[in-house]
Amino acid sequence: MSRLESFIRRLTAQRDILDMICRDMEIADGPVIELGLGNGRTYDHLRERLPGRRIIAFDRVCQANRKSMPPDCDLILGEIDQTARPFVGINAALVHADIGSGYDDLDELNLRWLSRLIVDLLAPGGIAASGVKLDHPDLHPLPIPASVSSDRYFIYRRS
Amino acid sequence: MSRLESFIRRLTAQRDILDMICRDMEIADGPVIELGLGNGRTYDHLRERLPGRRIIAFDRVCQANRKSMPPDCDLILGEIDQTARPFVGINAALVHADIGSGYDDLDELNLRWLSRLIVDLLAPGGIAASGVKLDHPDLHPLPIPASVSSDRYFIYRRS
Repeated sequence: MSRLESFIRRLTAQRDILDMICRDMEIADGPVIELGLGNGRTYDHLRERLPGRRIIAFDRVCQANRKSMPPDCDLILGEIDQTARPFVGINAALVHADIGSGYDDLDELNLRWLSRLIVDLLAPGGIAASGVKLDHPDLHPLPIPASVSSDRYFIYRRS
Repeated sequence: MSRLESFIRRLTAQRDILDMICRDMEIADGPVIELGLGNGRTYDHLRERLPGRRIIAFDRVCQANRKSMPPDCDLILGEIDQTARPFVGINAALVHADIGSGYDDLDELNLRWLSRLIVDLLAPGGIAASGVKLDHPDLHPLPIPASVSSDRYFIYRRS
C-alpha cells in the first residue's frame, strides 16, 4: 500500500472515530483537548461537530492554516509534554491526540509520556481518541467503528 | 464540510486520478515530474504505480518523509517557477502538480506561471494532473473518474 493510500485510510479512520464519538457517545461537560494541532483540520472538524465547546489546542509550533486558527487563549505552543502539565486536572471531556511523527521510533518515545498525560487531563469517564495505541491501567479500550482497521485508530474511556 | 472532510476528498480524488492515469491511459516514454513534493505521499504512490520510471520532484524546501525521499539527482529545491526552467524541453510523459498552498489568493498567483511551465515540461501528447485548474491553449481537459468531483482535480493532455 502506498503512503498516499495509507494516509487516506488514517484520515478516514480519524473522521469516522470523531464522528462516532460526537454523534453516538455521551460527552460530559468540560473542554476538549487537541494534542497536535498540525494544519488544524481535525480541530476544524471537532469545532464543527461540537459547536460552542471550548477546544484547547497544543502543538510544538503553530503550523495551522489561518482558517483553523484557535483563539490565542486556546493555543498552547511548545513541547507538549511540558506545556500541557499546567492543565493537569482540567477535567477534559475528550482528548484527541494526533501527534504521530511519521516515524515509528519517535512515536515510541512519545508514547512513554502521552498515555499518562491524557489520563491526567481527562475527567473520570472522559474519552480519549488517539492515532497511536495508548497504554495505562486507567484507560479502557472502546470498540471502534467497523470502517476502521483495528490498528489504525484507538478510543478509550478513562475510569 | 469540515476541512478534514474536504482534505479526505482531495486526497481520494488525487489517488483516483493518478490510478486512472497509470492504469488506463497510455503513458509515453519519458520522465514523470512531481511539482510540489510535500510529504512525498504522491511521489510514493507514483513510484509504486510506475516502477522503474524516473520521477523528478520539485519543491521550495524539502519536507519529505525519509521513506519517500527521492535520490539527490531527482530532487530539485528552490522556487519552482525558477528551478524548473532548466528542465524545459525534457519531454515529460506526465506532470503532476500539487502546489496548492491552502490559500486561494496564493494559489491564484501560482496559476499565472504554472500552466505555462507544465506545457513547457511536457512532451506533445503528455498528460498533466493538477489540484488546481490549469489554463493554456495547448492543455486540453480530459474526463475525470466518476468518483471525483469536477472542481477538485483536473487532467489535461498537451497538444
